[in-house]
Parts: sequence; structure tokens; C-alpha cells
Amino acid sequence: MTSHKDMANAIRFLSADAVQKAKSGHPGMPMGMADVATVLFTKYMNFDPKQPKWADRDRFVLSAGHGSMLMYSYLYLTGYEDMTIEEVRNFRQLGAKTAGHPEYGHATGIETTTGPLGQGITTAVGMAIAEKLQNARYGDEVVNHFTYVIAGDGCLMEGISHEAISTAGHLNLNKLIVFWDDNEITIDGNLGVAASDNQLKRFEASGWDAQAIDGHNPDEIAAAIEKAQKSGKPSLIACKTKIGKGAPTLEGSHKTHGAPLGDDEIAQMRKDLGWDAAPFEIPSDILKAWREAGARGVATREAWQERFNELDLDAQETFVRTNDGGLPENWIDSANAYKKQLCEDAPKKATRQASQMALNALCEMIPEMLGGSADLTGSNLTKADSQKSVTTDDFSGNYMHYGIREFGMAAFMNGIALHGGFVPYGGTFLVFADYMRAAMRLSALMEQRVIYVLTHDSIGLGEDGPTHQPVETVASLRAMPNTNVFRPADAVETLECWMLALQSEKTPSVLALSRQGLPAVRTEYSEENKSAKGAYVLREADGLRKATIIATGSEVEIAMQARDVLQSDGIPTAVVSMPCWELFEKQDDAYKHDTLGDGVRVAVEAGLQMGWDRYIGQNGAFIGMTGFGASAPADKLYEHFGITSEAVVQAVKERV
Amino acid sequence: MTSHKDMANAIRFLSADAVQKAKSGHPGMPMGMADVATVLFTKYMNFDPKQPKWADRDRFVLSAGHGSMLMYSYLYLTGYEDMTIEEVRNFRQLGAKTAGHPEYGHATGIETTTGPLGQGITTAVGMAIAEKLQNARYGDEVVNHFTYVIAGDGCLMEGISHEAISTAGHLNLNKLIVFWDDNEITIDGNLGVAASDNQLKRFEASGWDAQAIDGHNPDEIAAAIEKAQKSGKPSLIACKTKIGKGAPTLEGSHKTHGAPLGDDEIAQMRKDLGWDAAPFEIPSDILKAWREAGARGVATREAWQERFNELDLDAQETFVRTNDGGLPENWIDSANAYKKQLCEDAPKKATRQASQMALNALCEMIPEMLGGSADLTGSNLTKADSQKSVTTDDFSGNYMHYGIREFGMAAFMNGIALHGGFVPYGGTFLVFADYMRAAMRLSALMEQRVIYVLTHDSIGLGEDGPTHQPVETVASLRAMPNTNVFRPADAVETLECWMLALQSEKTPSVLALSRQGLPAVRTEYSEENKSAKGAYVLREADGLRKATIIATGSEVEIAMQARDVLQSDGIPTAVVSMPCWELFEKQDDAYKHDTLGDGVRVAVEAGLQMGWDRYIGQNGAFIGMTGFGASAPADKLYEHFGITSEAVVQAVKERV
Repeated sequence: MTSHKDMANAIRFLSADAVQKAKSGHPGMPMGMADVATVLFTKYMNFDPKQPKWADRDRFVLSAGHGSMLMYSYLYLTGYEDMTIEEVRNFRQLGAKTAGHPEYGHATGIETTTGPLGQGITTAVGMAIAEKLQNARYGDEVVNHFTYVIAGDGCLMEGISHEAISTAGHLNLNKLIVFWDDNEITIDGNLGVAASDNQLKRFEASGWDAQAIDGHNPDEIAAAIEKAQKSGKPSLIACKTKIGKGAPTLEGSHKTHGAPLGDDEIAQMRKDLGWDAAPFEIPSDILKAWREAGARGVATREAWQERFNELDLDAQETFVRTNDGGLPENWIDSANAYKKQLCEDAPKKATRQASQMALNALCEMIPEMLGGSADLTGSNLTKADSQKSVTTDDFSGNYMHYGIREFGMAAFMNGIALHGGFVPYGGTFLVFADYMRAAMRLSALMEQRVIYVLTHDSIGLGEDGPTHQPVETVASLRAMPNTNVFRPADAVETLECWMLALQSEKTPSVLALSRQGLPAVRTEYSEENKSAKGAYVLREADGLRKATIIATGSEVEIAMQARDVLQSDGIPTAVVSMPCWELFEKQDDAYKHDTLGDGVRVAVEAGLQMGWDRYIGQNGAFIGMTGFGASAPADKLYEHFGITSEAVVQAVKERV
Repeated sequence: MTSHKDMANAIRFLSADAVQKAKSGHPGMPMGMADVATVLFTKYMNFDPKQPKWADRDRFVLSAGHGSMLMYSYLYLTGYEDMTIEEVRNFRQLGAKTAGHPEYGHATGIETTTGPLGQGITTAVGMAIAEKLQNARYGDEVVNHFTYVIAGDGCLMEGISHEAISTAGHLNLNKLIVFWDDNEITIDGNLGVAASDNQLKRFEASGWDAQAIDGHNPDEIAAAIEKAQKSGKPSLIACKTKIGKGAPTLEGSHKTHGAPLGDDEIAQMRKDLGWDAAPFEIPSDILKAWREAGARGVATREAWQERFNELDLDAQETFVRTNDGGLPENWIDSANAYKKQLCEDAPKKATRQASQMALNALCEMIPEMLGGSADLTGSNLTKADSQKSVTTDDFSGNYMHYGIREFGMAAFMNGIALHGGFVPYGGTFLVFADYMRAAMRLSALMEQRVIYVLTHDSIGLGEDGPTHQPVETVASLRAMPNTNVFRPADAVETLECWMLALQSEKTPSVLALSRQGLPAVRTEYSEENKSAKGAYVLREADGLRKATIIATGSEVEIAMQARDVLQSDGIPTAVVSMPCWELFEKQDDAYKHDTLGDGVRVAVEAGLQMGWDRYIGQNGAFIGMTGFGASAPADKLYEHFGITSEAVVQAVKERV
């Protein structure tokens, strides 16, 4: 029988050799955690490499993403078909599935992109939440899996780890098991240079079970996993390890963290560990043992499939559809019927209120929508009337109280989206996008449908002042690749933008919504989703167009007022509403040109000019903010900062 | 003698009445914490309202910044001259010092801007670090003050609180005392909706002393403060309070958190508490008692002044100068001498290496520079040869190992800058600006000279892949008001940008620096800091200029190569290096026009186009990224994404 040691050394040599060949990478962590990974993947993880998307598989998240070779090693060793030895050999090369950090979508078995520290463990908490939510809907027979995490000191030092730990403890996510690679090493040297927390006590203070083991002892590892699996709380397993375990002279040194070990060191390691195989060759008995371990899951999966087949057909369909991310049939027709009603009602509402009205309609049509807010439910208006709060004791609800944890919320939502089964959306104030931006970036990079409901979107929030008033935030989010930033002008546009967000399966969305009331500007019903083109002529000029006012969100009202004045002063002026730059950029040149017009272009938005030059051109003008806001009632602020219809009129007249 | 109760009720009524008058604000917290604040400010805080900038004053940070009326109340009551009752009456009105959240620079006594949760306590940790650093330099006789914080559940739920707590515990900041307003209320309802941490155990796990008291009992409050003052560790005092304490029907309800109590509720409160005075009138005996408490500090300050006068004159001068933010005389001459040397040496260096070379020179000239990195010292190259690490036992050093805590680092640096005495700079990878952006925003809003050294600034970092490759980050930072984003092209520009960052007393700076080596492009010495205008003609066209290539940082090399080809193909082309957009925007139109030229403009930068349209105009072109990066060696990536001199040449030729 192949020894544990040999099987673990397979990870060590694949990792050391791949990093050496790439001349860059992180061998220390995979070598240090090889024993834990070997025990976990050969004995406990439920997965089937031939059916890597099996819904009830255990999830694994390598929060310490720089140790990506750990992941590529076990994916290859257990027999994931797309993780060939050629891919391992091409570690960190252009086009390989084996990127420097694990990238979701590159190879099957990578459950989430990791590398930005602390986010892996937090995303895993989201997956564990999704498991509980699905379990409450389908029962233990169909949904019953663990979420395993390997985290390093970096992950536990990052602030977001507190949001993860606190939430997991509060919600009693007992099927979450975190291995902490307790190697006492960080890049700047020994961990003791910068931290001295008692992690076990810290986790216990937040409601976790915590164990400490020798991370190189397979029996201790196995016993700890079994104990954690039975626990009624989330579990931390602190694994005392040596970074770069096995390296003859560098074991235990931070020098193994982020650089190749060197040919000599690896040659000596081969001698010391009795490993004769050439780089990227795994002795056949060892590979066979790994492959057999990888095949363990087939029977488990087949038994699951039988149980699944006993569900009623509707439940089966819903399970498959929601896991795949499809939306219910006919929801668009229902949404359009509601839109028609809205056009007739023409309500004067803040767009955050309009968003709640849209949610009231949509959440009934699409029950897998999972709402939430970072403790601003009554301000963000993110809870639909039909929604029920999720609590520690009852996961049958569909609304999350994420707490005052914006960054956590965003990473949880990534995990929920990645897990499948739900369409997560969550709210906070727009300005606090800054707190969670690093997770929004991963939504975009991983192409996840996560919807950010960001209210209080300008100085229009008034008295709370500049710390709460976004001025640059919309621009900074527009800068993010693969993210649709919507800033709707009224209730109808808000609904349209919600519909687009739901339809964007591969793109996260931001809905920037006003605190203050806004008049209806869209009162004529059309089935066409006009916001889908990103910008459109809301009101054409009477007469040959000489000027175009381009506006978004709450400033569309100002644009319309300015147009009235300009028209009556004999300057034919159109108003373009531009709820989404990113979608506008996808239109053809003719549409863009026709929309923006040949004449003078003046843009008005209660934010900074950054990026607007693209649309107004060199003869254009921008009416907006030039710096931070101030504390005062909203109407006073608009006047103070000169964001008024008078200013727009003047800018047009100076240029016509 | 005036009772504690009356004095605390003065805070309660000022807060309730001001919020009522403003028709917005947060009365619950000031009312709940009025007892703690009264004991602290009348008996323990060392401060002198007539000399509010006295260097050795105790610092107070209202981390739960929404409770700003607590602050305005005690500032008025203790006799800060600029906090008149008129200001209190004008709470949340345009131009008042009494903004919705405490804004640094509005009223004296506000030590930092708070409101974005979790950052107050973290900034306070920075202040406590600065105290220890100054104490190590000047001794107990001159620097010996406490930093007090009031934090709410929101602050302790935010992830950044972990970075603050962990750091304060590790560094044993025993003069930091945090009052936690343990009222069990958040906006979504009871705290138990979203959290159930044992905060005392949590703080203890990170090396703090923790006490729990009745936050309405003045004797318990006093005893806890005295115990905390004597502790050898940082202290948490958990104050069990009722939010909105004193409100007859709303006490204890989340309804008091963020809305006026209502006229009826306040009228009843007046009856219940026996408070006859009209709004904004404090009975004279109570005001007198508060003012006397405010005058306690005069003698303490005078005694301090006598001790200070005994320092040698050099030390006195340095203390005053560094607290005021002035730099040593003649440092610019020394820096220029080094620049001259650089021009002669023309080193081919990564700009992160050039930055370290600059630091080696500058840190000797300006010893108050305080370096640091979020555990990437060897990558960011932020430690100068002369610098010594600060440790728990020895604060005489000048280099901080901030740990894997980017957000914490940024907020600590804000606290250090606000405290005075040091010029903080700190490093991480540019892409992780996203982790700390919310604190960078406060650097900008508070006009603090904090310098962010952000290396690995593009796909040029290579194999670590898209999670580590900024593409949108520079744009997102350029969007931030009052922040200078520098992206220097070689060693000379790097030095110039460092000099500008040091000279920007009211503006934080970002230095975006390359991982990869770059050739020297500035080899002719001029005393003039050419980077100071933000952009300049690095190489004029030979012949009448027909095209201008605008580039930043690592892409200036590509621009120069393209120019050579274009010149030899008969197209006179200039290269403009543009290390700082923000400074370029401050130049007059003539300079801008002369620099950018009339001809075809092509910009090249290994980032997104966002914002570049302003400079290239509608006939221009941009060569850069269009989405996220990839994992591969840097040269392969430049080729793959088409950021090459060939692409620049082609773009010019298509347009000339």
C-alpha cells in the first residue's frame, strides 16, 4: 500500500518542480500543507473528478491562493480530466489553466478565484450559507455537503476575516471547516514581527470550535476532521506546519514562500525524500493510489442521484435551473406588465423606493432572489414585502441581515453566486462601495451575477455630509472591467435596470439609487427595455437639434428643466438619459452618434467629470462636482455646488 | 454641587434638540453615552480648550461618528471658543462647523473625521502608535498622553476593527482606551440579528485588558478608566447602555438611532428629567460646572510647557517643526544633489527600486519619515538602509511592519499624520489599493500628507495574474478628489515625484511603481522638478510636431521607441511624460496646449482608457488594456495585449 508520505510528497514535488520551471511562484505553502491536503482529498472530500459540477459535492477553497500549486497538484492527482500534466508543466504561462493564482473558470474544480487575501475564507462562508439555504429548501437527502478551506496567516490577519468568522459563528455554519496553516511565517519574516493573536481564542469568542494539531501528522489530521464534521459549530483546525516542509535547507524559512527553491535544493530534496521520479512524473503506484482516492466519490454521487430522482419533478427542475442560473419562464412578461402599470402611475419616488417596488414584484416572480443589506435595510429598501429574514435557526428565509460588514457581504454574495441556487443582491450606501471594492472586483473577474444595490448615491443624501456623499464613487466603479453601473432616473428606468441586472448572467451590476424623490420621466409604455442600450433619447429636440443634455439618475430632472428653458429660448435641445455607460459602449457607432447628436453636448451628473470627456467632446461642458461634498440639506447643496438647470442652460448657451 | 446627572443631561438635551431642529441626525448614541462622556471629559481627559492644539493633550476619537452631537456638546460645554451655541444650533447646516459627522478641520477639538465605521478606532490606533514613537524620542516628560475612543457595535463589526485590535494588542498600546457603547442595537434591529461575538474574549485573545461596566453608573465608569489607565495593555471598557437613554418611550429602541425623537417625546423628556431650560440653553450652574471641568487642563498644560522648555533648543525646534509638518531646511538642495548624480548614473531600474534609492537618500535628510509596508517590505522596497524596525519593545525605530492589513495600515497612517511628528508612508501592491481605498478617501478628505507606495503597478508584474494586476486601479485613484497619483517613468522622475509628495502638505499621494526594470529617460540634470507640472515634453519632435505620444510610467519606454520609428518614417513626433494628471490639470491652458500639441495624440498606458479621452481628444487613440490581465511572463503579456511600440506607431500613422 502506498504510504501517506509518498502521496503527500507527490504534491511537494509537483509544486517545487512547477515553480522551478516557471521561475516564479510559491512552493512553501503547498509543501507545508501537503499532508493536510492529502488526508482531506484522499479520505474525506466528497467529489467526483469526472462530474466536477455535481451539485452536492463538498466545496474546497484555497484561501491562501498563492499556494495554487497545491490545488493544481490534487486536481491532477485525483484525476480531473482538464488538469493534465501538460497544464501543470505550463504553470504560470499564457493560456494555461494553471495561472499564478487559482482562477475560477480556468480549470474545473477551482470553486473560486483566490489570491487577494482573506477573501477566500469569506467567499467560503458564502458557500456554506448557500448550502444551508438550499438544505432548508431540499432537505438533507439532496443538499448536505461540507465547505473546506485552507487559510494562511495572511487570511486571518486581513480584517475581512473577522467579518467571515463573526458571521459563520453567528449563523452556526457547522459544515464549514477551516484549516489554518499555522506556520508562523509571513513575507516580512516571522509572524511575530506583526501579530500575536491567540487565534483559537479568537475563533472561540465568535462561536467556533477550535482544535490545534500537528499539521504533518496524518492521524491527527484525520481525527480533527472527523471531530469537526460532527461539531455543531463551524470549526477551525490550527495545523502547526513548517513552510516548505521537505526542503533540505530552506524548510521553515520565509524564503520558500514566494520564490523557486533552486535546482540544487530540489535535487537534494529528491535524495532526502527518496524520490527518484523526474519532474512532472509521478510514480505509477502513487498516481494509482491518488486516482483511486479520486474515484471514491463516484458511488456517493450515484447514490445522491438516486435520491435526487425521487424529488418531485418541479423540485428537480427548479433545483437544476437555479443551480445553472436560469430564471423562471415568463418572468419578463410579468415584469413588463408591472412596467406598464408604472408608466400609468408615474410615481414620484426616490429610486431606492422604486427599487423596493421593483423588488416587491420581481421577488415574487423569481423566488431564488436572495436579498440582504449591510445593516441598512430600512435605508437601502432592499427587503421585499414577501421576503423573510434568514436566522441562525431558520434558513428557509430569503433575506440576509449581513450586519455592518460591507466587504464581507460582497464576498459572501460571491460565494452564494458561485455555489449556485440563488441570485444574491445586497445593499449599502454607495460611498461604502469603497469598503467592498476588492470583492466587487472578484465578482467582475469571476463573471458572477451579483447585484449591488447602492443607495444614497450623491450629495442628494444631504446632511450626513462628505463622508457619506459619493462624488467619485460612480466614476471609480465605471472604471471596473465587466461591471455594469446603472444610475436610473425614475421608477421605470429602475425596473428596467433591475431587469438588465438579472439578465446579466456573466456580469455583476451596481444599481446607484437616490435617497431623494424624483419625478417620473418615463410615462409612455414600450415593451422595449430602453435602458438596455445604455443611453437613449429621452426627449427629442423640438426642431433641428442644436444641443444635447446628457444626464443620469437624479440629474435627468435637471436636464429636463433646462431643456424646457432652452426650447423656449429657441434652442432645440434633446435630453439623453444614460443609465449605463458600459451598455452604451456596446452599441454601434451610428446609434452612439445619433443618440449624442452633432450639436453642443452638456453632461450633468452630481459626481466628478472623470470619464465624461468621452461623451461631451472638446466643445462640451460638464456640470457636476469638482471635489468632496458638504453637510447640509440636499437642495442647499445642489445650489451651493451649482448643479442646477440654470447652470446647464448657461453652459449650452455659451457654446451654441 | 452640580450633579453628574445634570451634567450628562446637558449632553442629552443639546443632542436631542439639535437633531430635532435640523430634522435629521442621530440622537440615540449621544444620549446613551452621555454618562461615559461626562465622566471622561470632566474628570480624566487632559486638554485645554483655549489651546486645543497643545501637543501633549489626550486624544479623543468618536469612532461612532454619527453621534457627532456628543462631540459638539462637550466641545461647547467645556469651552472650545469656536464651538459657539450658534454652531450647535446650526447643526447640519451649510457652512456650520457642526457637520452631520465630525469633520476634521471644521472645529478645533475634532481630532479626525469619523463616520465611515471602524475607521475611527483604527485611526486612533495610529495616534497611539505616534504617541509611543514620539515618547521614545522625547521622553515621558514631553510626550505622555492617552488616546480615548468611543466605538459602537458598527465599529466592532467592521473587519478593519480586527486589524486595529490585533495591531494595538501586538504593539501593547497601553495608553489606548476604548469605550464600547454596548447597547445591543443596530439599524436592522437588535444586534442579535447579525452578530453574537463575545467581544471581551475577542479583545483578550488579541492581548487587551477588557472590563464590562454599567455605562450609566458614573462610579463604575470612573473606576474602569482608572484601572485602564494603569494597565500595561490596551483597554476595552464595555459599557452596557441604553440607546436614547432618557427618552420616555423610545429609550432602548433603534428608532432613536438615526432620526429626531419628535417634539412630544422631547417635551415629555424635559418633564421626566426635570429640565426646564429652553433648547440650546444650559442652566448657568451646569454650564459653569462644565466650564470649570474644561479649565482643569490649564495647569497641566502649563506644567508641561515648563518641562518642554527644559529640552535642548534643537529638540524643541524639531518637536515643534515636525508637529507642524514642516520639513528640515536644505533638504531640497540635498535631494537635488542626489538627482544630479542620478542623471549622470542613468540607472536601469524598476521604479520600485528607484523609490528605494530615493528613500535611502530622503530618509537621511528627513528623519521624521516613518516607513512601513503591509507585509511586503522586500517587494515594495519601502525600507531604507538607515531605517530600523519598530517593535513592541522598542519604538525608537522608524519602520513599521504593519502586517497583512492594508486597510489598517492606511487608517493607522491617517492617525499618525493627524497626531503629528511624522511623515508616514506605507507600501502594498497597487491592486490592493482596493482594500484600503476607504481610508485613502479620508486621507484626501482630511487633507493629510500620507504617502502610498504602491508597487507592481500593471500587467508588468507578470505571472501572479489578474488578481494582482491593476488595470483599473490607477483610473479609480485618479477619480479620487485631492489625491495626487504619480506614475513615474524612471529613477529621476521617481525622485521628483517623491519630492512632490513630501511637499504636498495638504494632499495625500500615490506612487504607482513598476515591478519591472525601466531604462533611464531623464539623463540631463535640471534643478527644475519637471514632474511638478504633471506632464512635460520629454522629447520634442525633430521638425514641426505632427504627433504627440503621451505616456506614463513603464510605457514611456514604449513611447520613446515608437517615436524613433515615427521620426525615421518622417513623422515628427514628441513624447510627453505625464506622471501626474492632477498637477497637469492645475497648469494654465497655454501650457497644457503647448505640451499636448495640435497634432495627433496617442496615449499609451498599461491600464484602461477611462479618463484618457480628456487628453487624446476625439481624433486620438489609446493603447492600453481593455479588461483584466492574465498570468504569464510580463513581456508575453505586453505582446498579448498589444501594448507595444508597433501598436503606437500604427495608431499614429492611421491618424496623421
